[in-house]
Amino acid sequence: MPNQIEVRLTGSGGQGLILGGIILAEAALRDDKNAIQSQSYGPEARGGASKAEVIVSQDEIDFPKVDTPDLLLALTQVACDKYGKCVKENGILLIDSTVEAPKDIPSARVIKVPILSTANSVVGKPMVANIIALGVIQELLKFVSRESLENAVLSRVPPGTTELNKQALQEGYKLVSRVN
Amino acid sequence: MPNQIEVRLTGSGGQGLILGGIILAEAALRDDKNAIQSQSYGPEARGGASKAEVIVSQDEIDFPKVDTPDLLLALTQVACDKYGKCVKENGILLIDSTVEAPKDIPSARVIKVPILSTANSVVGKPMVANIIALGVIQELLKFVSRESLENAVLSRVPPGTTELNKQALQEGYKLVSRVN
Repeated sequence: MPNQIEVRLTGSGGQGLILGGIILAEAALRDDKNAIQSQSYGPEARGGASKAEVIVSQDEIDFPKVDTPDLLLALTQVACDKYGKCVKENGILLIDSTVEAPKDIPSARVIKVPILSTANSVVGKPMVANIIALGVIQELLKFVSRESLENAVLSRVPPGTTELNKQALQEGYKLVSRVN
Repeated sequence: MPNQIEVRLTGSGGQGLILGGIILAEAALRDDKNAIQSQSYGPEARGGASKAEVIVSQDEIDFPKVDTPDLLLALTQVACDKYGKCVKENGILLIDSTVEAPKDIPSARVIKVPILSTANSVVGKPMVANIIALGVIQELLKFVSRESLENAVLSRVPPGTTELNKQALQEGYKLVSRVN
């Protein structure tokens, strides 16, 4: 992987994106990488869009602000309209199947997968959409190991939801194998 | 309050400091302020010390990294030894009663209160130490409103722990009134 990877997770409040960012950062730490995880609360947070940012690096990280991420996840149309255009050249725009990508992003860089409907219908719990998304991101970027990601997930989710969240990660992995 | 306040919460993993930072940032948002909340995961995170940072401002925040906080909370000796010297001139070093302050910090700037023992003995739940600490910080800095802080706490803690966490906040407020 490149020396440094920047990921931005966007959607609506309540979709667990801050937790998703914390889990990614902790997975990186378990892989002996460095990470900074942050969220900004400003005027834009009042418009119904939520975002969490993660930078993972093999070296020390100087500047903690994500400007143009390598991957931007948008789980809602509102979030995609607000943040979807801000992705690194050759970066990935990962959107839920219910979301329309901005017209000026080349379609080769847009990956559209049914994260929300998989959470609802396959796993049966809408709340695991964030964990499914982490599985998708893992398979697209492979910037942490599957083992570290799984351990980071299990250390952060509520007791009693272990199997549910393991299944959610697996469903995320599978969504990518169907795309490729 | 000054235009911008920076707070660093340190202690050991499992003390809920990341959640504490998120709650402070959300309280600021409820007060129509801006906030950035971040945590760094690097070599230092492997030494048993955990830290979370919050910047709250009435204006847009340009640079999200806390360098010298206005207030540094240290719940453990390890965290205090590592981070305790890094506080703004005239800033506050807030430490648990079990912690010794670094010798070269003027004692007028050190506030020592029994956060951990209040969590254990008064509230009866060690896990609310982070919420008691938020009550203490609120009373020392008053950089968010009590109402917003309480609403932010209640929106983030597990269902069924509402009364426990309200009590924890109140105990935090009381600890400061005893100091002053």
